[in-house]
Amino acid sequence: MVFRPIAVLCAAVLGAVACEAEPQPSAPDRAAVDLIVGGEWVVTMDPGSPVVEEGAIAIRGERIVAVGPADEIDAAYEARERLAGEGRVLMPGLVNTHGHAAMTILRGIADDRDLITWLQEYIFPAEVRFVDEEYVRIGTELACAEMIRGGTTTFVDMYYFPDAVAQVVEQCGMRALIAPTVIDRKSPDADNAEEGLAQARAFIGRWKGKHPRITPILGPHAVYSLSPEQLDSVAEAARELDVPMSIHLSESRFEIETMMAKHQQSPIAFLDDRGFFDSPVIGAHGVYPTNDDIGILAQRGVGIAHCPSSNMKISSGIAPIAALLEAGIHVGFGTDGAASNNDLDMFEEIRLGAFLQKVATMEPTALPALTVLEMATAGGARAIGLGDEIGTLRVGARADVIQLDLTDLHFAPIYDVISHLIYVADEQDVINVIVEGRVLMRNRELLTIDVERVKAQAQSLAQRINAELGGNAAGSPDETDDADN
Amino acid sequence: MVFRPIAVLCAAVLGAVACEAEPQPSAPDRAAVDLIVGGEWVVTMDPGSPVVEEGAIAIRGERIVAVGPADEIDAAYEARERLAGEGRVLMPGLVNTHGHAAMTILRGIADDRDLITWLQEYIFPAEVRFVDEEYVRIGTELACAEMIRGGTTTFVDMYYFPDAVAQVVEQCGMRALIAPTVIDRKSPDADNAEEGLAQARAFIGRWKGKHPRITPILGPHAVYSLSPEQLDSVAEAARELDVPMSIHLSESRFEIETMMAKHQQSPIAFLDDRGFFDSPVIGAHGVYPTNDDIGILAQRGVGIAHCPSSNMKISSGIAPIAALLEAGIHVGFGTDGAASNNDLDMFEEIRLGAFLQKVATMEPTALPALTVLEMATAGGARAIGLGDEIGTLRVGARADVIQLDLTDLHFAPIYDVISHLIYVADEQDVINVIVEGRVLMRNRELLTIDVERVKAQAQSLAQRINAELGGNAAGSPDETDDADN
Repeated sequence: MVFRPIAVLCAAVLGAVACEAEPQPSAPDRAAVDLIVGGEWVVTMDPGSPVVEEGAIAIRGERIVAVGPADEIDAAYEARERLAGEGRVLMPGLVNTHGHAAMTILRGIADDRDLITWLQEYIFPAEVRFVDEEYVRIGTELACAEMIRGGTTTFVDMYYFPDAVAQVVEQCGMRALIAPTVIDRKSPDADNAEEGLAQARAFIGRWKGKHPRITPILGPHAVYSLSPEQLDSVAEAARELDVPMSIHLSESRFEIETMMAKHQQSPIAFLDDRGFFDSPVIGAHGVYPTNDDIGILAQRGVGIAHCPSSNMKISSGIAPIAALLEAGIHVGFGTDGAASNNDLDMFEEIRLGAFLQKVATMEPTALPALTVLEMATAGGARAIGLGDEIGTLRVGARADVIQLDLTDLHFAPIYDVISHLIYVADEQDVINVIVEGRVLMRNRELLTIDVERVKAQAQSLAQRINAELGGNAAGSPDETDDADN
Repeated sequence: MVFRPIAVLCAAVLGAVACEAEPQPSAPDRAAVDLIVGGEWVVTMDPGSPVVEEGAIAIRGERIVAVGPADEIDAAYEARERLAGEGRVLMPGLVNTHGHAAMTILRGIADDRDLITWLQEYIFPAEVRFVDEEYVRIGTELACAEMIRGGTTTFVDMYYFPDAVAQVVEQCGMRALIAPTVIDRKSPDADNAEEGLAQARAFIGRWKGKHPRITPILGPHAVYSLSPEQLDSVAEAARELDVPMSIHLSESRFEIETMMAKHQQSPIAFLDDRGFFDSPVIGAHGVYPTNDDIGILAQRGVGIAHCPSSNMKISSGIAPIAALLEAGIHVGFGTDGAASNNDLDMFEEIRLGAFLQKVATMEPTALPALTVLEMATAGGARAIGLGDEIGTLRVGARADVIQLDLTDLHFAPIYDVISHLIYVADEQDVINVIVEGRVLMRNRELLTIDVERVKAQAQSLAQRINAELGGNAAGSPDETDDADN
C-alpha cells in the first residue's frame, strides 16, 4: 500500500479547514503543531484507502492538519507531544449513537426479567425515586470514564437533568449530543411532557452554539410514551430551534402493536405523516421497520442507532441492519444504557453487530468487518449529523482519534488489522484517546476524570438505592441466595 | 448470607477425597496447606449457595481441602502462599468444551466468507500445507496462553499431532481432553481415516491414565466427513479403549441436508442407531436437533458444546440451548477454533450465550445469568465427563480456580456479582489462575508460558503462510486495499 502524498490528500478533501501547504523537508522549517500521533496501521476510514501502514497525523488546536506517512509528517511538523505508533492502530474515535449515560448507576440492578417487569418494577420506580442532579452527574461521569477508556469519543445521550450532563461533558473533554428526555409521565426532572419540553427549550437556549463539543438536541421518548399532540409540539420546537431529535423508534413488538392498534400505522409512517422527519432525527433501535418504513428512513435521511446488546438482552428483536445499509440509510452503533447491556463497550457492539446479522441472515458475508467499523466511526458520525466533522482521519476533521495497542497476545498473529479490530479487540486494547485535539487518556490513564472518586460515589448511591428498595432490587430471578454488596 | 461451618460442608460433599476434620482454633495447631485463596465473593457453583461473601478455600496438593469463611480458613490452615480476596471474585475455572487450539495460527486469515469458500479455499489448504508438529506446538501454546489469561482452566481439543498438544498441556499446566481428529481425507498428520485412527489408538495408548491433567480421547470429525463404517470403527475403538469421543454434531444446515439426503435420518438419530452413544460423547454445536434428537441426547447422556461466536460468525444457526437444558442435557460453552471466532475468550461466549437465547426465544428470562455461569463451569465439566472432579468449589474437588478483580470501573457500582460476571466481565478482569493447585497466572503474569517467544513464533509462521499463499489469504472480501503485515 502506498500512501498518497500529503498535498494530494489535502486536495482530495472537501471542506478542509486547515489544510497545510506542501510540507518543508528541512527540520528547522518544520511547522509547529500540538500533537503528532503515529500508527503502524492507520485506519483512516477514507473510502479510498481504509488502511495504510506506518502513518501519522498532525494535530493543531482542535483539528487534524495533516495525514501521511510517518516519516513525512515528522519531517514536516514539530509537535509539543508525539504518541508513537509502533504496534498500534490509529483510527477515528468511536461514535456511540444512543445511550442513557447516567443509567450506569443501575448497572446490574435487575437482569433476566421481562421488559414490562423490568421497566415498571425496577427502572422507572428507581429513577423517579433516586434520580436527581447529583445522581446524573455521578452516573454520567462514570459512563464517560468507561466510554473514554473504551475508545468512544462522541456519544448521544437521552436522560434527565441535561445541564448536569453538559457540565460533565464539558469537564471530561468528550463530544456529545445531549437530549433532555420528554415523556408523558412524571419523570425525575419534570411533572409532565409540557414541563419537560419547556425545560428542554431552556436547556437548548443555554447551550446551542455555545460550546464546540456540546450539541443540545431534543429527546422525545417514543411514539407510545407521548401523545400525537405532544410529539407535534416537540417536532415544532425542533424546527423552531433548529436542532435534531433523538427518539426510540420501532424498538419493540409492544411499540409496533400499540401503534397499529391505535393508529393503524407503523411508528415510522405515523411520524412521517406528521412531518416529524423535517428535522434531523436519530432513531434508536429500528428493529421492526417495514419495507415502506425503510424507504421513508432513506428518503428523509433519518439516522439509525443500532444497539445489538440491548436488543438481544431485553429480547427486543433483531434489526434488519443489512437491509437498512443496502437502502443507503446511515446506521451507527449504540450501547443503550448500562441497565440493559450492561456495559458501554463499543467494541463489543461492533462485533455483536457483525455476528448478529450473519446468523440472522444466514449469510456469513453480511456486515463484513470494514462495514461495521465504518458504522462505528464515519457511519455513526453521519447518522448523528456530524459526518463533516468527525469519523474519518482527514485533513480538516476534528481531532477525535484513538490508538489501540495490537501487541497483546490475543492479536497474534496479525494477518489483517481490520479483522482484529472487529473480531478480537476489546475496550481494554485502547491505549490513547484524543478528543478535539486534547489527550483524555494516555497509556490507559484517564486524565480528566477522577475514577476512584466517581466509583466510590456510584457505589454510595447504589448502596442507598439497594437499602431503600429493601435489598430486593438486585439480582437475577434464579439467585435466591445472594445478597451481594 | 451465612456460611455453613466447614465441618457441615465436608459432611455435605459426596466423594470428598481430603475432607478435613474440624479445624483447630489455635494458631500453632493450624494445618499446613499449600495455598489459601480468598474471595470477597466466592462463587461456589454449589446449587445450595451459589455466592457467599468473605470466603476462602484451602488447597493442598492438587485438591481443595476446605471451603469456608475467610477468617475460619485462616484460623484453621497455614499456607505457603495466600492470594487475597479483597475486591475479588473466587470461582471455578472455566471449561472450554470445544476448540481447535492450534488454529490460533490462522486467526483472522479469512473472514466474512461463506462456509464452503472459507473451508475449501482457505482453511483446508493452509492446514494441509503448513500444519506440522512445530506449528501445532506453537499454535497450542499461543491458545493456552490466551485461555489461561482469560480464566479457562480446562479445554477440549480436536486437532492434529496430539502428542504435541499433550506436551504443551503438560508444560503449561492446564487440564485438557485431547482428541486426535479422524477424518476421511488427507489431513496434516494422516493420509486417511484409517491411518488417523491407528495413530489415535497409539496416542491413547501412550497417554491414557498416565497424567492427571491429560485425558486422551477420540475425535471423529463429523458424520458427513466419515463413512458409516469409519464412524463404526472409531466408536468401536472408543468402547475398546474406554475413552470418550468428541464430534462435530448437528452443526450446520449442510450437515443436516447431507444426512437426510443420504440416510433419511438426522445425524443424531443416525449415530444413535449405530450405537455410537454407547461411549461418552461430547457433541460440538448441536444447532439443529429435532425433538426426537433432544430425547436421544438426554437419554444417552450426550454432552453438548455450545459455541455461540462460531455459530453466529459463520452463520451456522442458533442452537436451542434453552430447550436442551430443559431436557436435562449437560451443555457447556466452547470457543471453537480461533479461525471462526476469532478469540478464545470464554467470558464473551457466556455473555453471548445468554444474549442469543434471549433474542432467539424473545424471552428475556431465558438463560439467566447464573444458568450460563453454571454452563461455563459445573455444567461444562459434566458435559465432558469431569463433573466429579472440577467445576465447583467444594472439598475434594481438583483445585482449578480463578480470581477476578471486580474493582475495575466497568463493574461500578456492584449490586450483584453474578450479573457482572455475565454481562460485564471481560477476560482481562481475570487476575489469578490456578489449575491442579498450581498457580499458572499471578497478577496477570503468565508463569508457565513465555508469551513473547510464542507471539514471535506465531507471527513468523503467519508471515510464511501469507507469503506462500501469495499475500491473498488475509482480509475480508471488502478490503481491496490493505495488505497488512
